[in-house]
Parts: sequence; C-alpha cells; structure tokens
Amino acid sequence: MRLGLLYSGGKDSTLAALLLDEFYDVTLTTAHFGVTDDWEHARATAEAAGFAFERLQLDPGVANEAVERIREDGFPRNGIQHVHQHALERVAEEGYDAVADGTRRDDRVPTVSRAQAQSLEDRHDLDYIAPLSGFGRRAVDRLVEETLDVTVGPSEEIARADYEAELRAIIAEEDGEEAVADLFPDHEQTRVNRIHEG
Amino acid sequence: MRLGLLYSGGKDSTLAALLLDEFYDVTLTTAHFGVTDDWEHARATAEAAGFAFERLQLDPGVANEAVERIREDGFPRNGIQHVHQHALERVAEEGYDAVADGTRRDDRVPTVSRAQAQSLEDRHDLDYIAPLSGFGRRAVDRLVEETLDVTVGPSEEIARADYEAELRAIIAEEDGEEAVADLFPDHEQTRVNRIHEG
Repeated sequence: MRLGLLYSGGKDSTLAALLLDEFYDVTLTTAHFGVTDDWEHARATAEAAGFAFERLQLDPGVANEAVERIREDGFPRNGIQHVHQHALERVAEEGYDAVADGTRRDDRVPTVSRAQAQSLEDRHDLDYIAPLSGFGRRAVDRLVEETLDVTVGPSEEIARADYEAELRAIIAEEDGEEAVADLFPDHEQTRVNRIHEG
Repeated sequence: MRLGLLYSGGKDSTLAALLLDEFYDVTLTTAHFGVTDDWEHARATAEAAGFAFERLQLDPGVANEAVERIREDGFPRNGIQHVHQHALERVAEEGYDAVADGTRRDDRVPTVSRAQAQSLEDRHDLDYIAPLSGFGRRAVDRLVEETLDVTVGPSEEIARADYEAELRAIIAEEDGEEAVADLFPDHEQTRVNRIHEG
C-alpha cells in the first residue's frame, strides 16, 4: 500500500516514517509554500534514509490566512493548525492509499481529532494514520535517542521544513524580526542528521 | 528497551506487537483470571511468531467487581474497562521500561485517556504506548489482511484470551447462558492463526 507521510525532516516525522516503513510503501512528502529552501534539508534526510521523497506546493493564500490569524491571536497555534489541515488535504489529493503525519499524543499543535480523521478518510477514500499518536513525549525521545542522530536547538537556528519556519519568514519579511520574537514563543526544534545503522 | 504488551491472541494486539517489534524487546503478556484456558491459544500464537510470552494472574476480586458492574449496567463496556485498567496496572508492576496494549482509534472499549496514560507513566516511571491508537478500523483491517492469517467468527465460538471471554464464562456459570446472550451483544471476534512470511 502506498502511503504519503507529511515530512519536515524533524525527529517526529522521521520516527513516524521508520514505524510505518515495514508495512507501507512510504513516500516522505514535504509540503511548503516556496518561501524558504528548508525543504532541501528534508529531501537530503529522506534520501540518506532511503525513502522516496516528494515536494508538495501549498496554496500561498493559506499562508496569508495563517499569518493573519497569528497576528490576530498573538500566538501561532491556530495558524499552524490551519496550514496543517490544508497540507493533509493536499497530500490526500495525491492518490495514496493512506496518508500520515508525525503528531504525538502530547502535541498541542497540530492536532487531528477523530472526527477530522474520519472526515478526511471518507472524503478521499483513504486511511489517515498518526503512528506516533499513541506515544508520549518521553517514549518518542527515548526511541529517537536509540534510532536517530539528532541536532537540537532553538527554532530560529535549525533549518527544517516545517510550516512554522515559513510563517516566521513571512512575518519577519512583512513585520520585522521583533514581531517574530513576539508571536512565536521560544522552543526547541530538532533536525535529524541521519538514522543509526540498525 | 523491554516492553510488556497486553496480548489476547487477537488481530489487534498481534499487529501492535509487529509494529513495536523493531524498536522494543517485546514480551507478549496475557493477563487472565484463571477461569478459562484460552490463554493457551495466545501463548501458541506468540511462540509461533517468535515472541517472548508471559502469563499474568489478575485479581479474581476484579473479575467479580466487573461481573457485578455488567449485571447492573445491562451491557459489558464498563466492566471490561475496569478489568483493562487493572491489567495495565498489573503489567506496569512487572518492571518493564514500557507497557502497551492494542487499543485502536475507533475502539469504544477499552479506552485509555491521555490523563490515564500520563498517570500510569508517572506512577510506574515507564512509558505507556498504544501503537494502534493512530490507526482507524479500516487501516487495521487492511494491515491485518496483508500480514496475518486470521479466523473471524462470533465471540462464543472463538477461543482467545480476552477478558470478555472470562467474564462471559463467569456469568454463564453463575446466571446461565441466557444471561450471557442478554448482556453481551453479538459481535465478531478474531483470532490470529499465524503471521505471514514477510
């Protein structure tokens, strides 16, 4: 069965790929707005790990809606969620038997409710799978430590292909770096360098 | 890392074992009250698939509480949930680094909420993992079809080591077969015969 996994090059989506690899023909799919070149790192990680890779162009109008929402809210959660739902719809249009993402049990954003999952499945006649949604943060961290070679650092210093990076770049361009610091609370991001030999 | 997986010999917990096998040292753990010998089928399936197997004796008082609850409710859901929580506590006491079960996204019973998962993890200093909780019913069915050799039939004809079978046996013994038919709605159970060659 062919499965498209939304892929950022970060530890969660890389671990999700490894969990699914035994059962599906996995294509790592990096969805982006074309704002930054961070998708190139995701491609490099995907190819080094031997996975098929695909770039998926998102609708730039959705980036503008998300940025507008983040400005109104004063925090990024709902804007990122908006982009994630759009990205899931986009990958679902690609004709896969199943689509997946790297959301964990303890994630606050993005989240996909049971009703949203069912709706996506019914409308596109495919399975939506969140292979890490039964794993807590510590379980994921432990598996990553055993399996992946990971770089950890503040979001602004790590190049990975998540939507947040592109939304930050748009806000930096339009409103300046200070607006980015205001709207996005500091948090650690990770980037996967390579997968340990099994 | 050592992981104890609550194991019935059914398709869900067998698929859960295969998903976790790449990342954990998995022991299939069949928890039972000693009412029936159905655990022997779970052991046979576990051993045929090359997994370590353990029997775990549950507290017979919990079976009585569950049966009492099922009689009061007129349906089995809360009674089965009560036993599942007890079984998770029991396997958590065995010293594993992680414990797991085969609950799916669409399961109505048993369910383990995020708060219950966190509580189990904190009290026992381990990870609780529900590897199928990000998979819907159809995704599980498709993976099972590709991976397992499964027997499907009405609950009363299939020997597998789930709590329901033992609770049914107790009620049949104490209240008669008619009470079982009243309290347990007909539904299909599955039993795994073997795992396909990969």
